[in-house]
Amino acid sequence: MKFCSTCGAPVSQKVPPGDHLPRFVCTRCAAIHYQNPRIIAGCIAEWQDKILLCRRAIEPRYGLWTLPAGFMENRETTLQGALREAREEAQAEVINTSLFCMFSIPHISQVYMMYRGELQHGFSQPGTESLETMLVGEHEIPWDQIAFPVMRETLKLYYADKAAGAFTVHHGDLIRNEDQQLSAIIHR
Amino acid sequence: MKFCSTCGAPVSQKVPPGDHLPRFVCTRCAAIHYQNPRIIAGCIAEWQDKILLCRRAIEPRYGLWTLPAGFMENRETTLQGALREAREEAQAEVINTSLFCMFSIPHISQVYMMYRGELQHGFSQPGTESLETMLVGEHEIPWDQIAFPVMRETLKLYYADKAAGAFTVHHGDLIRNEDQQLSAIIHR
Repeated sequence: MKFCSTCGAPVSQKVPPGDHLPRFVCTRCAAIHYQNPRIIAGCIAEWQDKILLCRRAIEPRYGLWTLPAGFMENRETTLQGALREAREEAQAEVINTSLFCMFSIPHISQVYMMYRGELQHGFSQPGTESLETMLVGEHEIPWDQIAFPVMRETLKLYYADKAAGAFTVHHGDLIRNEDQQLSAIIHR
Repeated sequence: MKFCSTCGAPVSQKVPPGDHLPRFVCTRCAAIHYQNPRIIAGCIAEWQDKILLCRRAIEPRYGLWTLPAGFMENRETTLQGALREAREEAQAEVINTSLFCMFSIPHISQVYMMYRGELQHGFSQPGTESLETMLVGEHEIPWDQIAFPVMRETLKLYYADKAAGAFTVHHGDLIRNEDQQLSAIIHR
């Protein structure tokens, strides 16, 4: 951010009075421009013993597989966002949903909210952001071609719950360590 | 938003190619400026049979009571945000936390993430954003002086779980109806 979105003058970074973090503040109108984490909403769409994966037709991670998910929009709920993304990426309707997991990824200021639900009629077809869609069982998951670490962690939690015979709501963080490796921390 | 934060030229609202919603797009450099929901993180801090409330020293809802909570910052987790807010608003340390509930409020594009935990040593003192803090039992909650509807709904879920003898993770929406009334929808 270089310019004030309210008046168009240059901004500078400073800590506003009463605040404790540097913000972009307009040098003319003094408007403070906060920046906050963004939410990605998505889902695990189940059909019989399989789940829906989409192969990305867009960057980043073009050609790799992911669960349908995307940035939550203003004026929708997290669940509406998750269902909209399933429609956009896989022309899929997901019903009987439950919240499944939430992950904070602080080094990229993102929070993921993933649901679990039934893929209506087992139907999917690639939307404009997908090259293909597929229904896969646990042993067919292309683990080395999953687009995002958070999706790998979500799938691991999902199959652990499935093996245990009970789904619960999970809550974790994906932390980038000093050696640039990611660690998943699952809270109780 | 009236001006491009990247180059300072005026923006106009239009639907970018491949998109389906109007965005602020720069008339000069074509940068697209997305706007997304914001997360508020907070907590129910328990001490013996009581919980912590803070009386707001800031607008909106100056003088009314709330659970400690505030906007999540970039580069923190939702839990870190909740604990930071407890520190800032009540000089309180909260330990042994669990995720308690999540509410989407689409008409104001906000998502609340509320935790439950133990108020360490039962200690609190007003921070700069609070006039006072107090520990209250269920029958001392000032229901008609709670600052935000989402906090009233959170407290209702909390005392329902407490009466049932088991806490679970809740997930709901606060929807503004056509008559401007708010309805809480609790998902299964």
